[in-house]
Amino acid sequence: MKRNKTPVYYGDYLQLDKILGAQKMQSANYGDPAHDEMLFVIVHQVYELWFKQILHELNAVITVFNQDEIPDNALIEVVHRLHRIIQIQQLLNDQISVMETLTPQQFLAFRDYLVPASGFQSIQFKRLEISLGLKREFRIDFDKQSFYNRLTAEDRQILEELESKPSLFELVEKWLARMPLMEQDEFAFWQHFKNASDDCLESDKNIIENNETLSDKEKRQELKDLESTRQSFAALFDKNAYRKLNEDGTFRLNHEAMMAMLFIKQYPEEPIFNLPFQLITALTEIDEKLTIWRYRHAMMVQRMLGTKIGTGGSSGHQYLKKTTDSNRIFVDFFNAASFLLPKDMLPPLPEQVKDYFGFYKKK
Amino acid sequence: MKRNKTPVYYGDYLQLDKILGAQKMQSANYGDPAHDEMLFVIVHQVYELWFKQILHELNAVITVFNQDEIPDNALIEVVHRLHRIIQIQQLLNDQISVMETLTPQQFLAFRDYLVPASGFQSIQFKRLEISLGLKREFRIDFDKQSFYNRLTAEDRQILEELESKPSLFELVEKWLARMPLMEQDEFAFWQHFKNASDDCLESDKNIIENNETLSDKEKRQELKDLESTRQSFAALFDKNAYRKLNEDGTFRLNHEAMMAMLFIKQYPEEPIFNLPFQLITALTEIDEKLTIWRYRHAMMVQRMLGTKIGTGGSSGHQYLKKTTDSNRIFVDFFNAASFLLPKDMLPPLPEQVKDYFGFYKKK
Amino acid sequence: MKRNKTPVYYGDYLQLDKILGAQKMQSANYGDPAHDEMLFVIVHQVYELWFKQILHELNAVITVFNQDEIPDNALIEVVHRLHRIIQIQQLLNDQISVMETLTPQQFLAFRDYLVPASGFQSIQFKRLEISLGLKREFRIDFDKQSFYNRLTAEDRQILEELESKPSLFELVEKWLARMPLMEQDEFAFWQHFKNASDDCLESDKNIIENNETLSDKEKRQELKDLESTRQSFAALFDKNAYRKLNEDGTFRLNHEAMMAMLFIKQYPEEPIFNLPFQLITALTEIDEKLTIWRYRHAMMVQRMLGTKIGTGGSSGHQYLKKTTDSNRIFVDFFNAASFLLPKDMLPPLPEQVKDYFGFYKKK
Amino acid sequence: MKRNKTPVYYGDYLQLDKILGAQKMQSANYGDPAHDEMLFVIVHQVYELWFKQILHELNAVITVFNQDEIPDNALIEVVHRLHRIIQIQQLLNDQISVMETLTPQQFLAFRDYLVPASGFQSIQFKRLEISLGLKREFRIDFDKQSFYNRLTAEDRQILEELESKPSLFELVEKWLARMPLMEQDEFAFWQHFKNASDDCLESDKNIIENNETLSDKEKRQELKDLESTRQSFAALFDKNAYRKLNEDGTFRLNHEAMMAMLFIKQYPEEPIFNLPFQLITALTEIDEKLTIWRYRHAMMVQRMLGTKIGTGGSSGHQYLKKTTDSNRIFVDFFNAASFLLPKDMLPPLPEQVKDYFGFYKKK
Repeated sequence: MKRNKTPVYYGDYLQLDKILGAQKMQSANYGDPAHDEMLFVIVHQVYELWFKQILHELNAVITVFNQDEIPDNALIEVVHRLHRIIQIQQLLNDQISVMETLTPQQFLAFRDYLVPASGFQSIQFKRLEISLGLKREFRIDFDKQSFYNRLTAEDRQILEELESKPSLFELVEKWLARMPLMEQDEFAFWQHFKNASDDCLESDKNIIENNETLSDKEKRQELKDLESTRQSFAALFDKNAYRKLNEDGTFRLNHEAMMAMLFIKQYPEEPIFNLPFQLITALTEIDEKLTIWRYRHAMMVQRMLGTKIGTGGSSGHQYLKKTTDSNRIFVDFFNAASFLLPKDMLPPLPEQVKDYFGFYKKK
Repeated sequence: MKRNKTPVYYGDYLQLDKILGAQKMQSANYGDPAHDEMLFVIVHQVYELWFKQILHELNAVITVFNQDEIPDNALIEVVHRLHRIIQIQQLLNDQISVMETLTPQQFLAFRDYLVPASGFQSIQFKRLEISLGLKREFRIDFDKQSFYNRLTAEDRQILEELESKPSLFELVEKWLARMPLMEQDEFAFWQHFKNASDDCLESDKNIIENNETLSDKEKRQELKDLESTRQSFAALFDKNAYRKLNEDGTFRLNHEAMMAMLFIKQYPEEPIFNLPFQLITALTEIDEKLTIWRYRHAMMVQRMLGTKIGTGGSSGHQYLKKTTDSNRIFVDFFNAASFLLPKDMLPPLPEQVKDYFGFYKKK
Repeated sequence: MKRNKTPVYYGDYLQLDKILGAQKMQSANYGDPAHDEMLFVIVHQVYELWFKQILHELNAVITVFNQDEIPDNALIEVVHRLHRIIQIQQLLNDQISVMETLTPQQFLAFRDYLVPASGFQSIQFKRLEISLGLKREFRIDFDKQSFYNRLTAEDRQILEELESKPSLFELVEKWLARMPLMEQDEFAFWQHFKNASDDCLESDKNIIENNETLSDKEKRQELKDLESTRQSFAALFDKNAYRKLNEDGTFRLNHEAMMAMLFIKQYPEEPIFNLPFQLITALTEIDEKLTIWRYRHAMMVQRMLGTKIGTGGSSGHQYLKKTTDSNRIFVDFFNAASFLLPKDMLPPLPEQVKDYFGFYKKK
Repeated sequence: MKRNKTPVYYGDYLQLDKILGAQKMQSANYGDPAHDEMLFVIVHQVYELWFKQILHELNAVITVFNQDEIPDNALIEVVHRLHRIIQIQQLLNDQISVMETLTPQQFLAFRDYLVPASGFQSIQFKRLEISLGLKREFRIDFDKQSFYNRLTAEDRQILEELESKPSLFELVEKWLARMPLMEQDEFAFWQHFKNASDDCLESDKNIIENNETLSDKEKRQELKDLESTRQSFAALFDKNAYRKLNEDGTFRLNHEAMMAMLFIKQYPEEPIFNLPFQLITALTEIDEKLTIWRYRHAMMVQRMLGTKIGTGGSSGHQYLKKTTDSNRIFVDFFNAASFLLPKDMLPPLPEQVKDYFGFYKKK
C-alpha cells in the first residue's frame, strides 16, 4: 500500500510559508504604501502558478509527440491534458475582470515604483508561446527586436535553448503528415473532393452575383475574396503553388499535414478519426482562448493606462493589440473550414477503411 | 515624483523563485511520481493566494467599520472592496471545474501520501470564516469538536485570538443599529408598515386557500408556514418576542439592526440609503457565492472520493454538505424579503428626510 | 447543390414577429405597469428556448440508445450532443445572476398578478427530468402529490405518456449491462479487484484509527461510515445483498450495469473504453450542473421571497432546497469513486483485449 | 391589494405556444432535415430575446437622460439598469461557446438554404448600436454602404428615425457638459492639474530615455507616442486644438464633457461624484463587453466558415474583425486614463465642495 512515513500538514505540504510570504510591496518599500498593490502582485503570481501548470501539461504532451509512434491510449491522455489546459485558460481570461477592479488611479499610486519591470519578462509566458510554436519570425517588429534585451542572460538562455527544440506545432505537423490511411485511396478521395469543392465555389460565386443587397463595389470585393479562396484551394492539389503560399504565411502547415487535417475534419465521427479530431479541436480552443486573452488583456491595459506607457516603457495597449492576431499559431485549423464539404457531398469511405471501425463486429 | 531607485525585474518583484519553487510532490518524495499531483498542489496554492487577497480587503473593510462614525467616502471604498471580493469569489467557484479535471483514479495515485493533511487546516479559510462572523456556536457538531485539534498550537492561537475580536457581522450589525434617521418618524413609519404588511399576509392566506391545485395536506402545510412567517413578522414589533427568535437563531441580527436593514431595503433608490443598500447587497452576494462554493466543493469531493474518507480521515462529502447551509452568515439579508412591501404600498418618506437628497437643488 | 428557391430574410427565418411579440405584461394588463416584469418574462422564455434545445439533443440521444447495437460513430455523436447540453447548462446556471438583478421589491410590483402560475408548470422542464430518468417514486413528498394537479389535462397526458417510455437512465443502464468484454476474464478481474480493494479499505481503517486529530466520537462515526462502505462494496460480489441495496436506493443501477461502469471507470485510457468513459463523464456533468442549478435557483428564490410563498402558493425556497439532492439521477456515477483502485493496483488487461486497441499495428 | 381576476397558467403567461412554435427549419423545408439547424435557430432567437431586454433597459435609461435635470434617485435606477445590461452581456459573450459546438460541417448541412439572410439584418442589434451612439460616419466602409440596402423598407425606416434621435452617447455628453460644480474653482483646479500632469509626462520621458532595454528605434517610437499624448493633453487646455482633435476623431466627447469626465474619474470616492463615476464605469463595461463580443463572434465565424462567404454573401470574418474596434462608442472613457493623476498629486477639493458630502454631519 502507498503510505507516507511522516504525517503531512496542509500548510507544510503546500509550502504556504513561501507562497504567502512572497508578497513584498514596492510602494511600502518606498514608504508610500498602496493598499491595491497587493492585488497587482497576487493577480500576477496566480497567473504564474497557472502558467507553471499549463507548462507541466504541455511538456507532457510534447514528450508524447516526440515519439515516432503514438499509441491511442497516449493520445487519449494528451486530449485529457489539453482539455485541462483549456479549463485553466478559461480562468485566466475571467481573471482579467478581477484585475479590472483596480482603477487607473489605484494603479497610479504604485505604478512608478515598478519601472522598468514588464509582463514581457514573464519567462513562463514566453516558454508557453515558444512551446506552442510561436517562432521569432512570426513575432511582430517591436517584439522581434526587444524580445531578448529585456531579459537577464540566464532567462535569455533558457528561451534560446527552448527555441532550438521542436515546438508542439512542429510535432503535431509531423504527426499529421505521417497519419496512417492517408495513402490508400487518397487519389480517388481527393479527386472526388476536388470536383465537389469546385461545385461549391461555383455556387458561392452565384450567391454573390445574385445578391442584390450588395453594391457593385462590394460584389467586386467579394468576388476578389472568393477568387483568392479558389486559388488557395487549388494550391492544395499543386505542391509548388502550395509551397509558395506556405512560404508567404497563407498556410503554416506543410502540405501533407494540411491534407491529413482536412481528411480528419471531414470525418470527425469516424471512430478512427475521432481522437485526432478531438486533438485538433482542443488545439483550436487553446489558440482561440489564448487569442481572446491577448485581446481582453490589451483592452484592460488601455483602460488602466490609456495611451500612457507601461512600466516597461512601452505603449502597452498599441503593442498588445498588434500581437493579438499576429501571434496565433494553429490558425490553419480555423481556416480549414474554407475547404470543408457538407457531409452528403463527401466521397464514401472505402470498405477496408470501415473495417477498422468499431469493436462490436469483432465478436 | 514617485520613482524607485533600483530598477525592478518582473521575476524578482513577484518573487517567482519562491512562488514557482514551492511545488514539492509527495508522490515523487516516495519514488512514485504522479503527474497529476502538480495540479492538486497548484490549485490549492492558487486558492491560498486568493484567500490572502480576500483577507487583505476584508481586514481593510473591518478597520473602517471599527470606527464610530463612517464617512461616506469610506463607505464607497468599502463597497468597492467588497465588489472586488465578489469578483475573486467568482473565480474560486469556477476553479472547481479545473479541479474536476482530476479524475478519481488520478487522485488515488497520490492521495494516500497526503495523510492526514486536510483542507480543514487552511488557516486562511478559517480566518475568512471567522472574520466574516462564523462563530463556534454556529459550527456543526463535527466541526465544533475537531475544529482545533487538527491544528498546530501556533495556528490554533491565531484563530482563537481572531475569535475574540469583533467580526464583520458584528460590526455591520452595530453600524446598522446606529443608522441615523431611524429615530425620526420611526413610529409613524412602522405603524403604516405594519398595517400594510398585515394586508399582504392576509392576501397570501387567500392565495393559499383558493389554490385548488394544492392538496389539503399541502394547504395545511402552507398555512402553517405562513403562520410562522406572520409570527416572526409580529416579533419585529415586540422586542421580547424578537429576542426569543434571536436566541433560537431564527434571526441573527439584533432588533435595531434588523429594523434599519428593512428600512434600507425598502428605499434602495433614496440617495441617502443607496450606499447602505449597495453594502447589504454586496454582503448578500459574498454569502451566496461562499455558500455556492461550499456546495460545489462538496459535490466535487463526492465525485472524487464517493463515500471514501478524505486524506484527513473524515468522510468529506457528507460533512461538507452539512456545512453548506449551516455556515451561512448574512442569512437575515436573504430572509428580509419575507417582510418587504411593494413600493406603492410604502409610507411616503417625510419631507425633512427628502431634504437630504440630491445636490442639484442646493444651487 | 443545396439551394433555397425563395430568398430568406433574417427576421422571417427566426419568426421574430412571434418571438418578440410574445411579451405581454400582467401588470400592464391591470393598469399598473411594472418596468421589471419584462425581465421576468424574458428570462423564463429564454429558459424555455434552451429547454427545447436540450430536449432536441436529449431525444436524439435516446433514439440512439433505443437500438440494440450502438455503432461507435453513433456513440461519438451522442457524446458530442451531451457536451452541447453541458455548454447550455452552463448558461442556464449563469443566467441566475441575471434574474438576481431583479430586487425583491421590483418583483413585488407584479408578483401578485401572476397567481397561481408557477415554475412547476414548465412542461419542458418536467419532460427533461422524466427523460433523464427522474421517476415519481424518487420525487419528494410535496412534489409527488401536486406534481400533476397543477397541470392542464393535456399537459398531464404528455407527461404520463412520457413516463411510460424508457428514460435515458434506463437505456444507459441496459447498454452498460450488455457491454461486450464484460464476460471474458471477468472472474479473474473481479477476484483481483476484490483483493486489492479489501487492502484499500483495511488501510483506510488504519488511517482513521491512527488519526489523533479525531475525537473518539468522531472515530466511531468514521469507522461506522467506513463499515457501510465496506458492506456496499461487498454487495458488489453478492447479487442478493446488491438487490437489497438496489431496492433501498443505495444503488440505482442494476448489478450488471454497475459492474460495467466500474470496469470502464477503471480503464478510462483504454481506447476501447474511452468513448464509454466520455459518455459516463458527460452524464455526470449533466447531473452535477442540473443539481447546481437547483441549488442556485433555491437560493435566488429565498433572496427574492424570503419565507414568503411563491406565486403558485407554495413556499418555494424550502421545497426547492429539498429537491436539490433528492432529484439527482446518475448519482451512482459519483459514488462509484468509493470503489475505484489506483492504476498501479489494477489487474493487467489480458492480451486478447489489448488486441482490440489502436490501429497502427493493423498495417 | 394587487390581484389578478383570472388565474394565470405558466405556459399562457409566457405565450409558450408562440415561443416554442417559432422554430421552422429551412433544411426540413427542402426535404433535407439537418438536426443541428435547431441550435442555429434557437441561439439566434435567444440573442434576440436578450436584445429586446437590453433595449427595454436602454430606452428607460435614455428617457431619464432626456430630462434637463436628473435627480439622484433616477441616476441610481439608471446605474442599476446598466448593471443588468452588463450581466446580460456576460451571457451573450459566453453563449458563443454554445454556438461553437456547431462544427463547420454541421453548419454546411443547412447553410446554403439560408441565402441571403444575414446577421446584418438584426434590426434590434442595429437599434442597440444606434441607441448607444454608433453613427453612420463611424461605420466602416463596407458597412456604411450596405448598411441599409439589406433591409426591408419598413426596417430601414425604423432605423433612420432612430438615427434622427439623440443617442445615449449624446445625452450623456450633454449631461456631463452641464455637470454642476464644474464652474467653481475650475480654473484653480485645472491649473494645478496641468502642472502636476506636466511633471508626470516629463517623468515618463525620463523612463523611456533611461530604459536600456529599448532599441534606439523603439525609443524613437516611444517618444513619438509620448509626444502625441502630450499634445492631446495640451489640447485639453486649448479649445481650438481640442476641436481639431475632436473633429479628427481623437476625442469623441466635446470639451466640456471631457473635462467633467476627467474631474469625476479623479475623485471617484467623493460621494458627490460616486454615482457619476459608477455610471461612467458601467458604460465603459458595456462598451468593453460589446467589443469583446464582436471579437469572439468574428473568431467563431472564422472557425465556422474560414474565408468562405457568409450566407449574406459577405466574407463575414474579415468584415467583422474590422468592426470590432471601429465600432467602439465610449472609447474616451478608456483613454481618459492617459490624463489621470495619482491621488496624492491631486489638488485638494475646496471646502464648500466638501460641504455637500455625507449626511451624518447634518444632524
